[in-house]
Amino acid sequence: MIIKGFKMKLYEGMAEEYEKRHNELWPEMKDMIHEHGGRNYTIFWDKETNILFGYIEIEDEEKWAEGADTAINRKWWDFMAPVMETNPDNSPVSVDLKNVFHLD
Amino acid sequence: MIIKGFKMKLYEGMAEEYEKRHNELWPEMKDMIHEHGGRNYTIFWDKETNILFGYIEIEDEEKWAEGADTAINRKWWDFMAPVMETNPDNSPVSVDLKNVFHLD
Repeated sequence: MIIKGFKMKLYEGMAEEYEKRHNELWPEMKDMIHEHGGRNYTIFWDKETNILFGYIEIEDEEKWAEGADTAINRKWWDFMAPVMETNPDNSPVSVDLKNVFHLD
Repeated sequence: MIIKGFKMKLYEGMAEEYEKRHNELWPEMKDMIHEHGGRNYTIFWDKETNILFGYIEIEDEEKWAEGADTAINRKWWDFMAPVMETNPDNSPVSVDLKNVFHLD
């Protein structure tokens, strides 16, 4: 199991909308995450900076990366693009964070 | 089980020392964490901002909070105070982050 931490950034005033959309996450997206080895996925919001901190446990980096290139995931990115900072392909601007400590 | 996310801040240039000290975390501190219901504890470092992002699963807020007031934990805080932003009692300056998404 690999633990990944990363940060993304919300646009100003979009926290409520971001949370609402995630409370209503499409079942097909949940399936996509599980089918690509993602488990125990949590996202936190820092109201001081609008940074989103993501935590996820994955089985395999390659398998997880393949999930990004599914039709359902690209549809999700397009849907979320008005809410958060994105790249030209509508993927979220996401920066991996270094794991400096772990205790089971 | 309760999932907690929080941020702390390292002093400039202290990432290597922070990681080293956590790689060598005192066995008594590991025991203290487990005895107070903490599990699956991970800390990430954001090199762009020197923010530390903590993720932990706890059994109970009150039980977890009691761990802060143990002799071993106060000793750890004193040891870590030169490395990161702290309050007058040497506890880390720590800000809870809002959980906006979770998928098992």
